[in-house]
Amino acid sequence: MHQDPLYFDDLAVGMRFSTGTLTMTEDEIIAFARLYDAQPFHTDKVRARDSLFGELVASGWHTAAMSMRLLIASGPRFAGGIVGTGGELLWPRPVRPGDTLRVVTEILALTPSRSRPDRGSVQIRNETRNQEDEVVQSFSPRLVVPRRPGSS
Amino acid sequence: MHQDPLYFDDLAVGMRFSTGTLTMTEDEIIAFARLYDAQPFHTDKVRARDSLFGELVASGWHTAAMSMRLLIASGPRFAGGIVGTGGELLWPRPVRPGDTLRVVTEILALTPSRSRPDRGSVQIRNETRNQEDEVVQSFSPRLVVPRRPGSS
Repeated sequence: MHQDPLYFDDLAVGMRFSTGTLTMTEDEIIAFARLYDAQPFHTDKVRARDSLFGELVASGWHTAAMSMRLLIASGPRFAGGIVGTGGELLWPRPVRPGDTLRVVTEILALTPSRSRPDRGSVQIRNETRNQEDEVVQSFSPRLVVPRRPGSS
Repeated sequence: MHQDPLYFDDLAVGMRFSTGTLTMTEDEIIAFARLYDAQPFHTDKVRARDSLFGELVASGWHTAAMSMRLLIASGPRFAGGIVGTGGELLWPRPVRPGDTLRVVTEILALTPSRSRPDRGSVQIRNETRNQEDEVVQSFSPRLVVPRRPGSS
């Protein structure tokens, strides 16, 4: 995380970045869910068996928050920070206690702003992958990224 | 939250639900961001002035987590819980300290499962609105909802 900040002008379609990893613990899964998503399949190992999942799994919002933590700690360092207006968010597979996650970012499209020459729109896809390299979350936001001062 | 659980068969396109409210405090905004989204515009009132936002705003993931808390506490009680595979997530406006949020849910489409006659897919839109009734988050997931036993 001591890389130089990345301006819009430094980016190219197809660039990829990968974060470090973190492991989801059962205690953290349950603690997050008790606060924000208190459903038995996220908070109770025994009752989770009778749910659609059949086992304790992390809240998708917990996976999302932890993915953001990974991006902040060791993802691409966009100038101006990671400022997104949203995008498609998918959870193709559940996250289980003990899973080790990382986030792989790919630059999909770059669109200079017509109205604001000091910035551009960057379409990315952040795939959160587990230790088997399976995608557990895919989020494809558009970011607002400043242009390098003097470049526009 | 003492309503009977809602099965797929109980739902109709156009049905709307609204949760209670909660207020986002500056302390909670900063605490959540320190854990999951440690960027100056989410953690530092002074440094936030120099950001794209120009002021302290909540992490979008905090808004998402609080929206889920509202849905769990006082949203529609779907049988089997709120089990989503993802959808479009948008943050059209920032959430500021002191904003009071609620979630308005609308049923957009109902699709019985062809392969699994015991369940259906329910397309919904959850709009998180502030005290001015402005939409600060829109999330449109597909949920898996069981059919009423004996109905299929």
